[in-house]
Amino acid sequence: MKLIRYGQPGQEKPGVILHDQHYDASAFGQDYNEAFFATDGLTRLAQFLKENEGKLPQIGAGERLGPPVARPSKLLCIGLNYADHARETGATPPPEPVLFMKSTTAYVGPNDDLVIPRNSVKTDWEVELAVVIGKRASYVEEADAHEYIAGYALHNDVSEREFQLERHGTWDKGKGCDTFAPIGPFMATPEELGDIDNLRLWLSVNGQMMQDGTTANLIFKIPFLISYLSQFMTLLPGDIISTGTPAGVGLGMKPPVYLKPGDVVELGITGLGTSRQTVKAYGQN
Amino acid sequence: MKLIRYGQPGQEKPGVILHDQHYDASAFGQDYNEAFFATDGLTRLAQFLKENEGKLPQIGAGERLGPPVARPSKLLCIGLNYADHARETGATPPPEPVLFMKSTTAYVGPNDDLVIPRNSVKTDWEVELAVVIGKRASYVEEADAHEYIAGYALHNDVSEREFQLERHGTWDKGKGCDTFAPIGPFMATPEELGDIDNLRLWLSVNGQMMQDGTTANLIFKIPFLISYLSQFMTLLPGDIISTGTPAGVGLGMKPPVYLKPGDVVELGITGLGTSRQTVKAYGQN
Repeated sequence: MKLIRYGQPGQEKPGVILHDQHYDASAFGQDYNEAFFATDGLTRLAQFLKENEGKLPQIGAGERLGPPVARPSKLLCIGLNYADHARETGATPPPEPVLFMKSTTAYVGPNDDLVIPRNSVKTDWEVELAVVIGKRASYVEEADAHEYIAGYALHNDVSEREFQLERHGTWDKGKGCDTFAPIGPFMATPEELGDIDNLRLWLSVNGQMMQDGTTANLIFKIPFLISYLSQFMTLLPGDIISTGTPAGVGLGMKPPVYLKPGDVVELGITGLGTSRQTVKAYGQN
Repeated sequence: MKLIRYGQPGQEKPGVILHDQHYDASAFGQDYNEAFFATDGLTRLAQFLKENEGKLPQIGAGERLGPPVARPSKLLCIGLNYADHARETGATPPPEPVLFMKSTTAYVGPNDDLVIPRNSVKTDWEVELAVVIGKRASYVEEADAHEYIAGYALHNDVSEREFQLERHGTWDKGKGCDTFAPIGPFMATPEELGDIDNLRLWLSVNGQMMQDGTTANLIFKIPFLISYLSQFMTLLPGDIISTGTPAGVGLGMKPPVYLKPGDVVELGITGLGTSRQTVKAYGQN
C-alpha cells in the first residue's frame, strides 16, 4: 500500500495511492497516527481497501499533500551513515551509529515551502530514506527488526550547518527548524519496495544534480539501526528513523554552497516518489 | 494553581492540589495536553475550580502520580547551564546555551522506578528546574518570554554517561532511555512560585545529599532560554524545557559514582515539591 495524507496543515485526511491515482480514505475513519499503527491499522486498512476499492473519492491534482503519517512522537536521525558523505564533511565514518533528533515541529508535507530561518546563512539539503516504525520496539534483535517496520518514505533532512556545528550545542540546534523535515509524498509498505538495499536516492537544486547515491552504500543497514536504537529508547508506532544521506550536500562543496530564496530543491528515491520544495526567506510570502 | 495527573501510566486523569490535598479534576473534561494549553486551559481551569471547589473528589494517598502535563511534542534540555556543574564535568561554560533533546518515551511520573538500561554502567542523576510552555512560541523577544510560560516543575534529567559521551553520537543517546525523565509531582503556575531566580534545588542518593544548588546560579536565565530556543524551532503549548543541573552529579565525583539497583534518589526544588525514584535493573520487578 501507499499511504498519503492530504489537506491543509494540521487538518490532513488519510488517503491512498491506487494505480497512480490519489484517493480519499476518510471513510476508513482513522488518521495514520500512533494509535493506527499500534492497533494493526495497516491490516485493517488493507481490508478496508479490498472492500471499498472503486468506491473511494478521487483527490484533485491540486490538493496539498501533508506528511504521509501523523506527527510522530519522535524523529530520530542517523548521521554520517554513508562513507562518501562522512568523507566530504571531514568526518571519519563512526564505529557505531551517530544519533541525533529533529524537533517534530520541523515536520511538513513533501512539497511545502522550505523556509530559511532568520539569521541563517548555511541552510543545506540531505536526501534520506526514512523508516516508519509499526509497533512498540524495545531491545529488538536485528533478526526480528523487519517485524517492526510499517513502511518507508522519502525525507529531506534539511540542516542549518552553522546552527548545527558552530553554535555550541548538539546537532539538534540546526536540524529541527520549522519546515526542515519534508516527508513523503507517500509511505510505502515494505512489499511495495522489495529490496531496500539497492535504491537510488538523488537530490537536485535548480535542476542541477547534487546528490546521486544508493542505499547499497549505507554503512549501518536498517535492521541493525532499529535494533541498535531500541537499546537506547523505546520506539513507538509511527516513530520515524531517517537513515542518513549520501555525498553531495552543500557543506561538502569547495567552497560550500547553501540554499537561497527562490531555489528549488527536488529529490527522489526509487519506489518512493519525488518531492519538491521552493526555498523562501523567513517571513516571505 | 498546582496541576497533577494521577492514575495508571497512559491512563492518567487530571487533578489539582488545593490546600495540600490532591483532588480529582476529571469533571473539567480535558487532559493537560497541547490542546489544553493552546486554548487558554489554565484560565478555564481556574474558573472551573472557582465554581467547583468543595465539590471535587479527594484522591487517595496511594494513587500513583503521572507527569503533571501530558506527553509533550518535545522535551528540550539545556546542558552546562550552571558554572559549577560545567567545571565538574571538565567543560568550559559555553558562550551560548547548549541544546539537546530527550526522547519523550523517557517521560514518567515523579515517583516511578528509575530503570537502569541493559548494558548501562554509568546511569547518573541531575536535578533540574523545568519550564512548561503555555503557547506557541516562535522568534519570541526575551522581554515577552514570560507570556509563554504555563508553569514550572521538578525534573530529574537522568543521564547515561557512557551512552551520552563515549558512544559516538550526540548527547541524545544517553538522555532518552525509558524512565529517564521523571517529572513532577506537580506543575505550579508562575504566581505560585514568585521569584524563580532564587530557588534551592537539591538531590540525594540513599539519604546522602549530592546536589544542593540554587537557580540564582543559572548562567542563562529562563526568559533568555525561551527567546533563544524559539529562534531555532517553534515551541508548542505543553512543550518542556529543562534548564540544566548544578554541581554534584555522579560523573563529577572523584572517582565517579553511578546508580545501582536498590538506590533511592530523592530530589526537590523550593515550591515545586519533591520526588523519589527507586533504582531498578532492567527486567527487575
